[in-house]
Amino acid sequence: MGDIDRGRAQQLMGEAGMDALVLFQPEAFRYAVGAHAGVATMWGRAGSAIALVPADAASGLAAVVSDHAAPLVEKDAPDVDLRRHRIWIDMVDMSGVENVSQVDGAYRRNNSGGQRPETFDRAACFVLLADLLQERGLSAARIGADLEFMPAADFSALREVTPAVTWVDGSTVLKRLRAVKSVREIELLRRAAAAAEAGLVEMAAAVRPGVALSQLSNAWKAGAQSHALKSGFSLSGHWDYISVGPALSDMTAVVAPGALIKTDVGTLVDGYSSDGARTFSWGAVSPLAANIFKALEAAFASGLEAIRPGNTFGAVHAAMLASMRKDGFSEYYRGHFGHSVGGGVGIEEWPFFSHDNEEVILPGMVVALEAPFYGEGLGALMIEDQFLVTTAGAECMNSLPRTLRDLSRA
Amino acid sequence: MGDIDRGRAQQLMGEAGMDALVLFQPEAFRYAVGAHAGVATMWGRAGSAIALVPADAASGLAAVVSDHAAPLVEKDAPDVDLRRHRIWIDMVDMSGVENVSQVDGAYRRNNSGGQRPETFDRAACFVLLADLLQERGLSAARIGADLEFMPAADFSALREVTPAVTWVDGSTVLKRLRAVKSVREIELLRRAAAAAEAGLVEMAAAVRPGVALSQLSNAWKAGAQSHALKSGFSLSGHWDYISVGPALSDMTAVVAPGALIKTDVGTLVDGYSSDGARTFSWGAVSPLAANIFKALEAAFASGLEAIRPGNTFGAVHAAMLASMRKDGFSEYYRGHFGHSVGGGVGIEEWPFFSHDNEEVILPGMVVALEAPFYGEGLGALMIEDQFLVTTAGAECMNSLPRTLRDLSRA
Repeated sequence: MGDIDRGRAQQLMGEAGMDALVLFQPEAFRYAVGAHAGVATMWGRAGSAIALVPADAASGLAAVVSDHAAPLVEKDAPDVDLRRHRIWIDMVDMSGVENVSQVDGAYRRNNSGGQRPETFDRAACFVLLADLLQERGLSAARIGADLEFMPAADFSALREVTPAVTWVDGSTVLKRLRAVKSVREIELLRRAAAAAEAGLVEMAAAVRPGVALSQLSNAWKAGAQSHALKSGFSLSGHWDYISVGPALSDMTAVVAPGALIKTDVGTLVDGYSSDGARTFSWGAVSPLAANIFKALEAAFASGLEAIRPGNTFGAVHAAMLASMRKDGFSEYYRGHFGHSVGGGVGIEEWPFFSHDNEEVILPGMVVALEAPFYGEGLGALMIEDQFLVTTAGAECMNSLPRTLRDLSRA
Repeated sequence: MGDIDRGRAQQLMGEAGMDALVLFQPEAFRYAVGAHAGVATMWGRAGSAIALVPADAASGLAAVVSDHAAPLVEKDAPDVDLRRHRIWIDMVDMSGVENVSQVDGAYRRNNSGGQRPETFDRAACFVLLADLLQERGLSAARIGADLEFMPAADFSALREVTPAVTWVDGSTVLKRLRAVKSVREIELLRRAAAAAEAGLVEMAAAVRPGVALSQLSNAWKAGAQSHALKSGFSLSGHWDYISVGPALSDMTAVVAPGALIKTDVGTLVDGYSSDGARTFSWGAVSPLAANIFKALEAAFASGLEAIRPGNTFGAVHAAMLASMRKDGFSEYYRGHFGHSVGGGVGIEEWPFFSHDNEEVILPGMVVALEAPFYGEGLGALMIEDQFLVTTAGAECMNSLPRTLRDLSRA
């Protein structure tokens, strides 16, 4: 089962005047269909996996998938109407085969069709989609595609195969849908945040004067991975932006007394990335750094106060910027103070807590709120936490204190 | 300095009737400019980093980059004509700042401009590109863009800003250029192959009856990472497709006597992925598996024999398929028996050793040759090695024996 809320999809498509969404991005396919799109999507091209989401919530989902991915898609998404295309991988059911002379028979029984394409046959995939659109009465419909993903070369080929369709950009409808998470997605993001935070605990324990940034990164990874292992899930990825000391892009830096240690980290669980940040030091930081951090703490608190259903993303940005202004930072700016998380290709997902953003905060969104300061020659400071928006406000998915922690006093 | 051969680029653009290439994919930017494209490319959108490669090899490179990425690009690519756009990240040089009241002055000195965009300002980026095209006399030129990457939504915006440009798909020219590697790229691919192979050695040592697939995967990763560490480089990524036993997609499988263990693995060094595979067992495999492996060995040898400059990629495919036919596999097929490696987004890069592929093998290409057999109920078998094409033929980047190794006899 996918994570898509078909009722909300119908409503959003209705508002946008779309009869259907057709999704090509592998992450969007996974989201809508509830099964992985398969290995033939590795090139970032469109066609190998396609999800058709009719606006009418009563009309079932359909999908184009590779013969290689089909068995798993059938298992994970039994209700989806599947159309198969052949890819380069030649797989055969060897049941009952005892010697080489019987292999041909096995192929004839369950893998007919001879020649296979070099990778996948985009034209064949688009024809399967055109068939589906015809069966659903959508051949001359107004259809949203994820054109913020779909390569221009592929879109031009698609239009030739579907001449009567009015293709429009469905990216905003898709992003709006995805910003409100399913129960499953929320759980993945909780796990990812917990693993990242366990990594920070292990990293903090490794901080000593003379320890290198790369060692901190390794300690973080080890802590995150061991948390996942102990908790019975696995990480599909991880990333860390750690800075140590005054030179922001010095990857060879080592911890020195009083130097700032900024850790902006995330892990991925089944493709869903967490995002969170803490600032540490070994020994007291300068009064300047301490005062900047105080301003960030106040800004963060102001932003958090503004995260509630019905408020806009822009209101959070305004609250945080106003807090910085009040504390004497008249020239400090920031394009966004956080964002949605989970499920796309970037770590930071739309919508953003950005200037004048009128997008409305809704229950079920999972967002990261961030208050950073990047001072070359001073160091980086940052507070970032991940929140589930509830009807009551914002529930934090992290538990480490948000303070600038002097680890020599731990 | 980038990895692009400007002389060859001029020749290929000449043949394709292009006056310039304009590259938007982050990996292509890195390739042409010789510096990383920066964090604002995380969404897979076009604009934040753009490389302009005039067909005329005597005409310098130009690029559009973010103000955040610019310092590193300037350092790594001092000869490139850079145009800067502002992104969401607010960084300030804190030299001489001693208290919060002086921070505003620091911003005024080195980070002017007030408001920043939510992420990056695509329109501003395209205007900077249009300026560059005008300065180079390319405003009404025929220009190739990487339309196999560029999202359709972005391409449509680009065309509005550059109405007189004739945009064509430059993807094939780009892929043809990238298929022949620079000395630096070859070295990265050697390192990646060596790390992956060190991982296989560590994994092989961990094979015992009852050991789980996930433990083999972990042993492989540990071996690859420790090789990189000892050799003084770091991995930018890694991947492994390991199958254990007869059920090809059973990720919970454990090693059993006589069961096939197929390891198709790669590590990435600075974004360049290796690709290689070996097959192992603990105890003797069935005569059927042994006979299939013999056929794969023969096919692999036939393919390798055909990898030489001047031959086509299709000839390698034909040789391998003929070998399988000769050994009694009349229905076995395979879309490709290998591919170029290194530098794009997929593990497998164009060109492919595929049916009737007339692309010519050239010295300096790095390719992976693969002979796989996926038998559900039997297991997977595979031989894959990475080669540098030289004027004399093919130089293997791997050293482990290609045999099906029974590790109980090691």
